[in-house]
Amino acid sequence: MAVFPDLVRDLTDDEEYPDIPLVTKRFAKVLQYNVPLGKKTRGLSTVASYKLIATPEDLTNENVRLAQILGWCVELLHSSFLINDDIMDSSETRRGSPCWYLVEGVGMQAINDALLIENGLYMLLKKYFFNHHCYVPAMELFHETVMKTTMGQTLDVLCMKNGKPAFETFTMNRYNSIVKYKTAFYSFQLPVALAMYLAGKYDAELHRQATTILLEMGHYFQVQDDFLDCFGDSSVMGKKGTDIQDGKCSWLAVLALQRASADQRKIFEQNYGKPNPESVAIIRGLYEDLGLPNTFAIYEEENYNLIRTHIQQTSQGLPHKLFFKFLDSFYRRDS
Amino acid sequence: MAVFPDLVRDLTDDEEYPDIPLVTKRFAKVLQYNVPLGKKTRGLSTVASYKLIATPEDLTNENVRLAQILGWCVELLHSSFLINDDIMDSSETRRGSPCWYLVEGVGMQAINDALLIENGLYMLLKKYFFNHHCYVPAMELFHETVMKTTMGQTLDVLCMKNGKPAFETFTMNRYNSIVKYKTAFYSFQLPVALAMYLAGKYDAELHRQATTILLEMGHYFQVQDDFLDCFGDSSVMGKKGTDIQDGKCSWLAVLALQRASADQRKIFEQNYGKPNPESVAIIRGLYEDLGLPNTFAIYEEENYNLIRTHIQQTSQGLPHKLFFKFLDSFYRRDS
Ligand SMILES: [Mg+2]
Ligand SMILES: [Mg+2]
Ligand SMILES: [Mg+2]
Ligand SMILES: [Mg+2]
Ligand SMILES: [Mg+2]
Ligand SMILES: [Mg+2]
Repeated sequence: MAVFPDLVRDLTDDEEYPDIPLVTKRFAKVLQYNVPLGKKTRGLSTVASYKLIATPEDLTNENVRLAQILGWCVELLHSSFLINDDIMDSSETRRGSPCWYLVEGVGMQAINDALLIENGLYMLLKKYFFNHHCYVPAMELFHETVMKTTMGQTLDVLCMKNGKPAFETFTMNRYNSIVKYKTAFYSFQLPVALAMYLAGKYDAELHRQATTILLEMGHYFQVQDDFLDCFGDSSVMGKKGTDIQDGKCSWLAVLALQRASADQRKIFEQNYGKPNPESVAIIRGLYEDLGLPNTFAIYEEENYNLIRTHIQQTSQGLPHKLFFKFLDSFYRRDS
Repeated sequence: MAVFPDLVRDLTDDEEYPDIPLVTKRFAKVLQYNVPLGKKTRGLSTVASYKLIATPEDLTNENVRLAQILGWCVELLHSSFLINDDIMDSSETRRGSPCWYLVEGVGMQAINDALLIENGLYMLLKKYFFNHHCYVPAMELFHETVMKTTMGQTLDVLCMKNGKPAFETFTMNRYNSIVKYKTAFYSFQLPVALAMYLAGKYDAELHRQATTILLEMGHYFQVQDDFLDCFGDSSVMGKKGTDIQDGKCSWLAVLALQRASADQRKIFEQNYGKPNPESVAIIRGLYEDLGLPNTFAIYEEENYNLIRTHIQQTSQGLPHKLFFKFLDSFYRRDS
């Protein structure tokens, strides 16, 4: 993934925009603050997938570099989503630093910065792939993935009505749809599909099979995310959880409502979605009383094994190792 | 432009996203509120340009319909820009109604809605043009245009430092760059370039010549916009001006600083960028004292004539009528 400085240079090249050096300078700053400091799971798995899918003689330095560029395109997309998501969720920290919109002098211009980053990926696609067989499919895939992710965010926010959580919408069905759209497509399906296109091994049936497993992984990943939002160590994660305060339809909230007694439900409804630390502590206590940390531990083990079984049952075509590696990259993660 | 209902149906089709009917319903509402109620200058000029550029025998109903769809794609892009711009400028009204982010229950989710709309255009391009020779050039053109517009918005906001207008940046040079990037490319160059691609008459030299004139028109259009923001009738325009309150580097502000005496400059600096109505009235009074309404009237006539001359001097290739029609669509506008 060492190509990042080159890509920043491409995107902020003074020759392309000679009359607006202030803008290109700012764009470089936006990229540096927001893109390279995360875990890069999605970018790295794009490259790893490519290496496992490509025909060995295709694994030239040049092609691996193209895979790295696609990986960074996924990371650009990811960071543009995060900038906007942090505004919409009123989050405070991200990767151990203030969220971009909270940085002095940024504010709502962050919306515009997210657009710069998102569109940067199309500039890179054109520069490096305009002659490549994967150019048009990759563009289309990015468009579709943005659409699906944005629809998932819509569904996420639609769990609020008039600024309050609409508890009647907190069902496991709704949760599953949110997660599929807002997380699983762009975090799991996108990297693998890009790798298939780059390797020239795209096949609709293979893609369908892979998508089924990748969406299962995405679900597991988001359940972890929801669990860590409440029970993770924020100093390890680099961000403070806000799901309880924001009244999110999280995995924990859905389970809590399934299990709560009438009295517990009342306590839940009185305190969920409130910003004060006391309410947050009450909800966390309720989650503990309901045994959710233990339920999560069981879910994690069972789901891990279930996904492994599904990988093994998948007919040959894509290497099983690809999925196992991806899965192990976040199994039992703490950040 | 009667195809709009069909396009809403395409974008919110339940068969494509059978598991998230709430989202498609909301997307339809977002489209209805934000897209069809403007002046549609950009969409209409896409269609008008196509009709003037295309070979007569190509002017079938089917092709005109494709031009209308491209026109709506431009309008989708425009409305996604407006949603975000209104948030960044803290505007209150748009097209006679509250700005979308101020509508009850919307808030910062408007950012996500703007993304839905923007990406909707790529869904439409794929549906209607995937087999058409203009498909890839049109996608690339939209990408580039989003990039340039977003860079223009960046430059626009960079005229503020620490929440205050940075008056040393208010030069005519800076103003010209802002306008070129934030307005002229997407409002003027994009519609004509799309029409050229659709008609199969794209030619780099023709495009270069057209761009020169279209950017001049874009400049004139933005100067009008800045003038109307202060001196227009907000009931006719459907929006209240906020440039003075926002401390924008507008055409009026740049001229005022060029002409102000030391005392007037002091008054300007004390009151520009302040939200209170008294300060706004003082600035408006100062603009009048400096004769800016008259300067604008002269600028409008001179510029109109200058652009007409440039159109006439342009070598044949694109019909002059195309440019004249475009120019007359906003000459002496009051909204
Ligand atoms: Mg969030
Ligand atoms: Mg969120
Ligand atoms: Mg989370
Ligand atoms: Mg504005
Ligand atoms: Mg603005
Ligand atoms: Mg304006």
